[in-house]
This record gives sequence, C-alpha cells and structure tokens, in this order.
Amino acid sequence: MSRTIKGRRLGQNANSGSPFRTATERIQDRANKRDAVLLAAVRMFNERGFHATSLDDVAASLGVTKPMIYHYLGTKDQVLFECVRNGLQQLRHAAAEAALRPGTGLVRLRRFLRNYAECIMNDFGRCVARTNDEVLAPESRRQFRKLKSDIDQVLRQMIEAAAADGSAQVDEIKFTAFAFAGALNWTAQWHQPGGPLKAEDIAAKLADILIGGITPEAA
Amino acid sequence: MSRTIKGRRLGQNANSGSPFRTATERIQDRANKRDAVLLAAVRMFNERGFHATSLDDVAASLGVTKPMIYHYLGTKDQVLFECVRNGLQQLRHAAAEAALRPGTGLVRLRRFLRNYAECIMNDFGRCVARTNDEVLAPESRRQFRKLKSDIDQVLRQMIEAAAADGSAQVDEIKFTAFAFAGALNWTAQWHQPGGPLKAEDIAAKLADILIGGITPEAA
Repeated sequence: MSRTIKGRRLGQNANSGSPFRTATERIQDRANKRDAVLLAAVRMFNERGFHATSLDDVAASLGVTKPMIYHYLGTKDQVLFECVRNGLQQLRHAAAEAALRPGTGLVRLRRFLRNYAECIMNDFGRCVARTNDEVLAPESRRQFRKLKSDIDQVLRQMIEAAAADGSAQVDEIKFTAFAFAGALNWTAQWHQPGGPLKAEDIAAKLADILIGGITPEAA
Repeated sequence: MSRTIKGRRLGQNANSGSPFRTATERIQDRANKRDAVLLAAVRMFNERGFHATSLDDVAASLGVTKPMIYHYLGTKDQVLFECVRNGLQQLRHAAAEAALRPGTGLVRLRRFLRNYAECIMNDFGRCVARTNDEVLAPESRRQFRKLKSDIDQVLRQMIEAAAADGSAQVDEIKFTAFAFAGALNWTAQWHQPGGPLKAEDIAAKLADILIGGITPEAA
C-alpha cells in the first residue's frame, strides 16, 4: 500500500527524474546507512576489542560524525548489543535452514553445525563468540544471555531429535551441546579471515569431526 | 646454600624465638603475598572483566595499597599476563602428568583432556580462555600467543601419538585439536563454579564425548 501526501504518490518512484527521494528510497537509504555503521563497528570491535574501540573511530572510518552513529544505533553498548543480536539472529537462521532439510536428524544436525561454524567465522558471529557477557551493560547483558540460551536450546533439540530417530547415539545431550558449541565458537579465536582455507571448508571439517563422535557404529 | 651477613646465618631459623624473620621466611612470605595478589586479581578479572577491574579494587580487596600491587607484580597488563601465564603453565603440567601415564595414546589423551578441562574451570585457566589476545599490550600479547601455540602443539602431538599407535582414528589432526580445545575452553563461558556438578565430573563427561569421536569402531 502506498500512501499519498498532497496528491503525490509515495512508495514508488513515480518521477524517476526527480531530485527528491521517494519514501521507500528514504527507508532503504536509512537501512543501508545503519548496516554500514554496524559493519564498520563490528569489524573494529573484533579487531581491537570493545574497550579499545571508540565510536569516534567507527565514525571516522565511514567519514561521518559520532552523533550520526548515535542517530542510527545509539550508545556504544547499544551498538555492541546490535552486533551480537545480529550474529545470534544469523545462528537462528542457520538452525531454521538446517531444520528444513530432508533426511535423518543427524543429517540436519550436521548441516546446522556447518551453518553455525560459518556464521561464527563471519563478522557478526565472530563478535558473538568473542564478547564476554560482562562487557555489556546489565540490560543488554540479560538479553544477550537470553538469546544465547535460546540457541543452546535449539542445538540441544536438534541433538535430541537425532538421538530420538536413531541416527545419532548421545548419552549427554546438554554436555554434547556445550562441547559442540564450544568447538565451533572457538573458531572466533583462531580462524584468520582471508587464510588459505575457506570458512566453508573449515566448517565442514569441524562438523564432520563432531558428528563422528555421535554416529552409531555400523552394525 | 645459606648466606651469612655479619656472622648471622640466614636461610635457617637459628633462633626460633627471634622477632626477625630468616631469609627463607622472607622469601616464602614474599611468594605468599604475590600469590594472594595474583589470586585476588584473577578472580576480579574473571568476574568483572579486565577493563572494569582496577588495581585499586584488587588492592582494596586485600587491604593493601596499589603501590603494593605494583611492587609484587607490576602494571595491570603485567598482572593479567601473569594470570594467563600461570593458567598456561597449569595446562603444560596437565599435559606432562597425562604423558607419564601408562596405556595407549588414547588413554593418555583422554587424561590430558580431563586435566585440561579441570584447569580451564579453575581461576587461572578460566582467565586464559576468557582473555582475547588484543586486551594485552603488544609484548605480553606476543608471549601469550606463543604460550597458547605451545599448548596447541602439545595437544596435536598427543592426538598424533594416539593415531600412530592405532588407539585413535583421526583424519585431521590440526582441526581435531582446535575442536577439542574449543570444546574445553568454552567451559570458561558456561561453567558456574559452585554449581551442582563438580568440575572434575564435567571434565570427565566432556573428555568422554570428545574421545568418543576418535575411538575406532570395534572390529
């Protein structure tokens, strides 16, 4: 539905030669700018650490001012929280994509572990795995913990489903989930982006190593 | 060897009723104080994070002054480096203890993984796993990375030895070592000291989960 103001139709570029942007273009433009700020911030957090990063530096790297960052994302705590929220959302999508796959529970779990590792090796996932809870302010910290706990629950459910359909053999669901998450989250500490091996190849190797541990022996 | 100053023998408590301490007592006393400072610091780093901890707070928790901390350990960067160096030294001892055990390479590797996990769940190991490299100043960071890399090499060697004597089946030594270390290091993020399950029980469970993945199928 497009709205009209003073007879001019918004939401579509009725006059492509106009120097004025349509409402849709303005919304898109704002989203693009917000994304650019978030990406610049997350890369700086990952490289220098949260405390050594100032929003002034983030702003300077984009050729804008600090008030512009506040305008799009808020305080430094809010910027970090947006970064980890973004990474955790990607992990949820990773689970959802895997859950839709055909095959056994183990096949879907392997897919999730691969997707998960790939997320952790990108900018936002890396930030999730490198951020200690206590760095965030109390309210952001509470939300960060909740979102991480949600992913942990999804991982446990997928391990449980694989055990339930007999495609996996698992004694300790909870500790297996912690071990798997840890093995994958740790890539944020050793993986150098731009190294000789692609993130997707590393992800596949790690998933195979972990899945190997819960694959029932051939009868 | 005991030294003598002005005819008085040091290094032994010749006069146990004396109000003056012997040299041995003074050395021991200094070591005890240094250990107490280090323990107070590492606990505060783990709980609040490095940046939110001031040496004033550490000093206050011990009823001493900040110059006293400088005297025993140096700057805050040096204190943190001492904490992680201590943790990494414990991991080396964990490996050495396991390497002396009888049995197959897999038996020794399992022992190392258990010891390793127990270290990570204590104060200094926790600090190793929770400290991102970039928090340290360049020279401490270089040493921290070197010490971590040494442990990684030891872990790879023990995995390789288990593969070599046929007690383990491993395709990717390097990635298996990263996965195992990550699974164990991650306890520093989720393990709550004083929880219902003992660290040694958690360590045993995690080691079993990881070892399960490289145990050859029964013929």
